Amino acid sequence: MKTAKPVKGVIVEDSFWKKYKQVVAEEVIPYQWKALNDELPDTEPSHAIENFKIAAGESSGEYYGTVFQDSDIAKWLETVAFSLRDHPNPELEARADEVIDLLGRAQAEDGYLNTYYLLKEPDNRWTNLRDNHELYCAGHFIEAAVAYYETTGKTKLLQIMEKYVSLIQQTFGIEDGKLKGYPGHEEIELALIKLYGVTGKDQYLMLARYFIEQRGQEPIYFIEEQEKRRQIQTAPTWNDDNRINFGLGFEYQQAHQPVREQTEAVGHAVRAMYLYIAMADLAAVTGDTSLLQACETLWEDVTNHKMYITGGIGSAVNGEAFTSRYDLPNDSMYCETCASVGLVFWANRMLRLTTDRKYSDVLERALYNGTISGMDLDGKRFFYVNPLEANPFQASRKDQEHVKTERQKWFFCACCPPNLARMIASVEDHVYTQTEDTLYTHLYIAGKASLVLSGQEVEITQTHHYPWNADISFSVHTAKDTSFKLAFRIPGWCKKADLKVNGEAVSLDHLEKGYAVIQRTWQDGDVVTLHLAMPVERMRSHTLVSMNQQQVALQRGPVVFCLEEADNGSNLAGLRLPKCSLIREEFDEDLLGGVVKLVAGGYRVKSPASLYSSEPQEWIPETITAIPYYAWCNRTKGEMRVWIYES
Amino acid sequence: MKTAKPVKGVIVEDSFWKKYKQVVAEEVIPYQWKALNDELPDTEPSHAIENFKIAAGESSGEYYGTVFQDSDIAKWLETVAFSLRDHPNPELEARADEVIDLLGRAQAEDGYLNTYYLLKEPDNRWTNLRDNHELYCAGHFIEAAVAYYETTGKTKLLQIMEKYVSLIQQTFGIEDGKLKGYPGHEEIELALIKLYGVTGKDQYLMLARYFIEQRGQEPIYFIEEQEKRRQIQTAPTWNDDNRINFGLGFEYQQAHQPVREQTEAVGHAVRAMYLYIAMADLAAVTGDTSLLQACETLWEDVTNHKMYITGGIGSAVNGEAFTSRYDLPNDSMYCETCASVGLVFWANRMLRLTTDRKYSDVLERALYNGTISGMDLDGKRFFYVNPLEANPFQASRKDQEHVKTERQKWFFCACCPPNLARMIASVEDHVYTQTEDTLYTHLYIAGKASLVLSGQEVEITQTHHYPWNADISFSVHTAKDTSFKLAFRIPGWCKKADLKVNGEAVSLDHLEKGYAVIQRTWQDGDVVTLHLAMPVERMRSHTLVSMNQQQVALQRGPVVFCLEEADNGSNLAGLRLPKCSLIREEFDEDLLGGVVKLVAGGYRVKSPASLYSSEPQEWIPETITAIPYYAWCNRTKGEMRVWIYES
Repeated sequence: MKTAKPVKGVIVEDSFWKKYKQVVAEEVIPYQWKALNDELPDTEPSHAIENFKIAAGESSGEYYGTVFQDSDIAKWLETVAFSLRDHPNPELEARADEVIDLLGRAQAEDGYLNTYYLLKEPDNRWTNLRDNHELYCAGHFIEAAVAYYETTGKTKLLQIMEKYVSLIQQTFGIEDGKLKGYPGHEEIELALIKLYGVTGKDQYLMLARYFIEQRGQEPIYFIEEQEKRRQIQTAPTWNDDNRINFGLGFEYQQAHQPVREQTEAVGHAVRAMYLYIAMADLAAVTGDTSLLQACETLWEDVTNHKMYITGGIGSAVNGEAFTSRYDLPNDSMYCETCASVGLVFWANRMLRLTTDRKYSDVLERALYNGTISGMDLDGKRFFYVNPLEANPFQASRKDQEHVKTERQKWFFCACCPPNLARMIASVEDHVYTQTEDTLYTHLYIAGKASLVLSGQEVEITQTHHYPWNADISFSVHTAKDTSFKLAFRIPGWCKKADLKVNGEAVSLDHLEKGYAVIQRTWQDGDVVTLHLAMPVERMRSHTLVSMNQQQVALQRGPVVFCLEEADNGSNLAGLRLPKCSLIREEFDEDLLGGVVKLVAGGYRVKSPASLYSSEPQEWIPETITAIPYYAWCNRTKGEMRVWIYES
Repeated sequence: MKTAKPVKGVIVEDSFWKKYKQVVAEEVIPYQWKALNDELPDTEPSHAIENFKIAAGESSGEYYGTVFQDSDIAKWLETVAFSLRDHPNPELEARADEVIDLLGRAQAEDGYLNTYYLLKEPDNRWTNLRDNHELYCAGHFIEAAVAYYETTGKTKLLQIMEKYVSLIQQTFGIEDGKLKGYPGHEEIELALIKLYGVTGKDQYLMLARYFIEQRGQEPIYFIEEQEKRRQIQTAPTWNDDNRINFGLGFEYQQAHQPVREQTEAVGHAVRAMYLYIAMADLAAVTGDTSLLQACETLWEDVTNHKMYITGGIGSAVNGEAFTSRYDLPNDSMYCETCASVGLVFWANRMLRLTTDRKYSDVLERALYNGTISGMDLDGKRFFYVNPLEANPFQASRKDQEHVKTERQKWFFCACCPPNLARMIASVEDHVYTQTEDTLYTHLYIAGKASLVLSGQEVEITQTHHYPWNADISFSVHTAKDTSFKLAFRIPGWCKKADLKVNGEAVSLDHLEKGYAVIQRTWQDGDVVTLHLAMPVERMRSHTLVSMNQQQVALQRGPVVFCLEEADNGSNLAGLRLPKCSLIREEFDEDLLGGVVKLVAGGYRVKSPASLYSSEPQEWIPETITAIPYYAWCNRTKGEMRVWIYES
């Protein structure tokens, strides 16, 4: 298996993403620090730092928070690590060092480090892997440790986590005397492979492999574990024994069968993403084609049957889970921000295995739509659930209270904001992959990449105003002429592209899985220009998506648009966009931080007097205005819909 | 307040309803008898008769069933009473007498009669009115007693129930020392008013009025009751104290405010119907205009905002409840058969208060669609939940398991089959109302009505083949010429009607609230003919019903149609009915017991390769066939949808 590797040291100079990265550095990181320290007024307390202080014996009181509260700190640390790359901040780094020191002081003698169990159930470690997230939290701290080491070169958190992993290794495995368990929420698997990446220690890879391969083996560990739990006193969990896993069986945790046999994406969507990432990573490191095959099958199922046009996944609040193929309700779904972030990460990993536009297209779709919709433009409020249709009446349904029509400041379960922050802070990691002699450009995010190609140090600069237009220019900087390949993704959404090297057209007749590959001896100052035609497209759903028929979603380049009440008044379902309407594009610098908005002539069906009527409908001409979906709910609260009835 | 009264002694000779009534007499009643006696193989046991035998000391064992299991017997008895009117059956009547004798033997000395409490919690009577249905069951037995008395003249069950009511009277009321409670599930209120009707005893009316008026008064009784319950040992109920009333508050039981202040239909839909019926009945008896006003306001809310085109109500499984205005999802809703049956009964009661087509239109809509869809044509299988869209993928959603794609034989909670049976067995009670000098015809159900108008005995016969056509003929039989009024409903769905008396046209320019009123001196043999044009109408939803836009439901006369997979193949959402398509009607005697089916030229959108696409759609011509909604799922299991995408 020939895999591509990530390109490190990419510098973002992109007008779109630089702003987001700045918001993360200047708003989100300090804001989340306050949250972790319970310094935000009018929000759910986090208690996350306090829990560690109590565990370190430096404060008194009781544990408070979800069983995975620790992971909020881990994700914050990882975000800080990423952000410090392009926003150096000695004060912030010192604060992170202090947190790491605190973790060290809270760590038990034997390496154990989870404040819920240290404080609440010290005798019950590892008794409820199904629900209680110990391994999940460990995974996030490992990821943070790797990121912090890679940015700062500091090893303290790595040491803390290696000590903890050593305990985990002694605890879990197929060897006699060990627990044959694996996490109820995947995460540590992918983290261990990262840890293997920076340390080179096989034992971490082996432990990751164990967790991945043990999953779903008969007898199902969680059943045995539950039996054992009946013998001891453990606290009740969020996972009700009367309706374990929300009625979804062990599909909820993707533990219903061994991972290589899984062909359908099932269960909790975030859990699924983290598992699939680990499977892809393990396949990349070990060359295991059976795992690659499983990943590809699952990818097809997710992206061809169970993904919203925004890159959202998870069709039901029940278990925050995948449901059936083509079951994609727009107003009652889950579409958790974390799940789309996971999809971005998974797509990135699949791209390392196979350079195929089908992965980068989805990566881009989730990146510009269903992930960043999770945060307002100021970085102060967050959506956990990202609907494609917000109806005012929906909010008052007690069974659909998960769908908020306004972003919230902070949640008791605060998984999404730090997850989105770490994705934005490391967005440059998704732009390229490379092999020894090829640089693959997956995303058009302006900036610089410095890397070695065919043994030569090269710098590639891309400039443009993506995603608002796609007149893209690449310049090559090399100290000496070198032969290597530059591969450019021609996005699936693009029907007309022009590629030139130093002004000379390159044929796009033969793409390699959606990539235009230019092999030549590059000279310093060579310029590649790529023009991707980006007209507004009327996207339609597969006919089996029953709820989206006779409706279109407007997409321009990678950006999916929506209608908002702020522009169109209420009752958005009463609007009709004629098939023949010309849709005008307009960049409005003052709108929502500068966006292209779409304007078209359409109609509003006049509200009839009665609920049902056979009377002819009256249609009143009306201008229809669409804005990028990610930017909805940044003005006033109101209706929103992505799918527009076409007439 | 001038009210109309029911017309008793109507004989059904209608081809449509006679068949249904025969099915109830010959299939449903014997079938349900077997169910009540646990003689049905492969179904949930009922244990209802057995519970009474145990309570009577004639059998041993434990109580089994829901807390309202007794009511299944009550509804069976009431159905038997109605059915005996036109299907005399001495053997069945003897069996009913035996059941009544058994009830008498099970009744406690003091009159108490509820097998759940008698057997399971003898010391805890009246401790959980919120959840445990004692008063509800009593209500159903009172209704049965009234019906059985009216048909047979036998008073035994009346005596049993009057004894029980006497105990209830001593127990509940605003007087010191009494419980200030009222039922968590309304039913006894309307039953007491019926009991008042046959006995003339004011005390029953007063008790009904107390239950109605005490409802929703502060402090809310159910809170006090819950507090008291904490002092004693009671069995846990289906209503989880952690999420009382499914998060709906006391709106669930319509106990959130005094009934006269209620302006929005809220909570459990069946409960709501039974309350509104009682309010209407109390208004009719007492002339209380404030209650009438409340009923009218609630009626507008239900029928103009919260009712499916089938007459289904209850938009959410959560609490089997009403939700918000215009929130009418077609595939995840509840639309319980019992709720539509309740809507029929309520409409009938509103018609007694005000002869207005808006009531009879809804009565007819529910009657020909959302009620009888609850039973297969053989009377052997039942839907509790009546979706307007059955997608195969829906059934595998664990949170939507309430939506069955096949009728079931019997349920643990077996409320709907006997409720539907009693509605069908008494369908003639909805055809007419009368005042001293006017006969109002609300429904076109062929048969004979014998009544006194302006002091003269009159017989009115109506003949036709409704609902398949509406060439309706009425003949008047009177021993002497008499002046009275005959009023005929011109249905809201009818855009062209012709009315003639003895061949002479009657102007329809001035309808009285939708009724054509003919006053004349009638002679024996006078003939009224009414032709109601019944073309297929394309019904559209209000623009605020976001899920039904760009879709039509086909309705012909009172009958709503649907597409079934059996006729159209799978993926019904992929079909398009052009605006210009001629829809052909065809009576098919061999189809589904003889129905009109609709056939139109349309298209099928070819399934694209990918989930989302901007490619032009390919449309393939295809014939679209629609059948009456009530008859769906009588051939093979498969997709169904009422709302058809129009192009």
